[in-house]
Amino acid sequence: MSVAYPVVPRYAEIDQQGVVFFGHYLTWCDEAFTAFQAAVGYPYPEMIADGVDIQIVHASLDYGSSVRWGDEVSLVVENEQVGTTSISSRVAVRRRSGDAWEDAVTVHLVHVCVDATSFTKVPVPPRLAEALAASRG
Amino acid sequence: MSVAYPVVPRYAEIDQQGVVFFGHYLTWCDEAFTAFQAAVGYPYPEMIADGVDIQIVHASLDYGSSVRWGDEVSLVVENEQVGTTSISSRVAVRRRSGDAWEDAVTVHLVHVCVDATSFTKVPVPPRLAEALAASRG
Amino acid sequence: MSVAYPVVPRYAEIDQQGVVFFGHYLTWCDEAFTAFQAAVGYPYPEMIADGVDIQIVHASLDYGSSVRWGDEVSLVVENEQVGTTSISSRVAVRRRSGDAWEDAVTVHLVHVCVDATSFTKVPVPPRLAEALAASRG
Amino acid sequence: MSVAYPVVPRYAEIDQQGVVFFGHYLTWCDEAFTAFQAAVGYPYPEMIADGVDIQIVHASLDYGSSVRWGDEVSLVVENEQVGTTSISSRVAVRRRSGDAWEDAVTVHLVHVCVDATSFTKVPVPPRLAEALAASRG
Repeated sequence: MSVAYPVVPRYAEIDQQGVVFFGHYLTWCDEAFTAFQAAVGYPYPEMIADGVDIQIVHASLDYGSSVRWGDEVSLVVENEQVGTTSISSRVAVRRRSGDAWEDAVTVHLVHVCVDATSFTKVPVPPRLAEALAASRG
Repeated sequence: MSVAYPVVPRYAEIDQQGVVFFGHYLTWCDEAFTAFQAAVGYPYPEMIADGVDIQIVHASLDYGSSVRWGDEVSLVVENEQVGTTSISSRVAVRRRSGDAWEDAVTVHLVHVCVDATSFTKVPVPPRLAEALAASRG
Repeated sequence: MSVAYPVVPRYAEIDQQGVVFFGHYLTWCDEAFTAFQAAVGYPYPEMIADGVDIQIVHASLDYGSSVRWGDEVSLVVENEQVGTTSISSRVAVRRRSGDAWEDAVTVHLVHVCVDATSFTKVPVPPRLAEALAASRG
Repeated sequence: MSVAYPVVPRYAEIDQQGVVFFGHYLTWCDEAFTAFQAAVGYPYPEMIADGVDIQIVHASLDYGSSVRWGDEVSLVVENEQVGTTSISSRVAVRRRSGDAWEDAVTVHLVHVCVDATSFTKVPVPPRLAEALAASRG
């Protein structure tokens, strides 16, 4: 299962070259990941209430084509792997091109689970691990 | 006394029209106000340690000329008034034009003092009120 | 006629105080104004194609209550006045509170119309002036 | 040769967890890279005037420790490699810890050179290639 999260590129996000400034994709990915977490069945606020937070430890972005103002954009999030304390995700930033969707930017994210108070690493909560595993099914 | 706070416009802040996106000036003003507060002698972290925080209640911006990438920019902050719980400031966003500085954007800010924990309004701390009054002297 | 433009506060927009950083509302207003312009019948890209662009000359914001992560937010845009070259708008940033909507931040914006190439002031295009007047009807 | 570019974390860049939102480091890197390019002797505006622009094609970030408001931060930029059309850079986001500097985030960037008008790939200009090679010397 993947989740497609629609994004409307904001005028403020377009730079002088007429394309989305390259750092802003991570802001979009963060929103899309939160939507993904809710979609698999363990919304972020519930996880926080359970005493677990997540932090990013790695992000990589491969920029293919550019996204422009007015483009119809969708971020497709998939879980790739669940480790002891870490979660690896793939986010495809797609933009509509006629009837098709093109991958514009491909992002990989690695989060780790941390205690929501002390911010020390903790195992991925079973509820989240199972929900993510099911999403890969 | 006023404080001149230098800002280097970031490429990410320039929009498709080739000028700083109009919302970003408030981010600059926030940094400049913090510098101003330190310069008058009551740095923000000390005020927080004393249990008082500030929140914005009003901002107005008059946009004259545009700021572009590569412009040399300085924000000049002055206190205008100190009320029972509020502080009014003027921030001139200036850019160098040859040997002179031109006002590009003029901003007025009104902050209120709040309890740093409960976020309810509190009087302006005497230490801050006196420092600001002295700055106007 | 007003237009209600939904906004999902981004995690990146929430500051250390747990509320939306006060400058980001202008980014939201910009998106909402563009949606408003399309809704009244003269989308921004068509106006640009007709050789007319708009620039902000004034913005003022009155901050009432705070917007937090997870809040349901809607920006309600209304035209207030159309001048020779200027357009005045009111934007209410509302957040849902139970069954009701509360005004969190009230924004006034004044744009001027400019030539899309030279950026010199031009009269408000009749098509836009009429569309805005009709929206007030 | 590396270039150390100072950054003052902005209050608006700090999120609800009390740390710099993870996407903002790329904005800092962009500013630092521009400073680096000037320092090696081929400022970006001169390259644009010569008809060559650069675009990001890859970025990866490894997040170690967090950067907080009030931290003293420096971005250290080094060239890693110059290809036919591409430039690989390493940026260490360092924060002061007592008398030492700690790497907080390590970033790798790959840019490609493009024609400043058509945005099609072009070889790295010899002037830039030589300047970068000299910086590695």
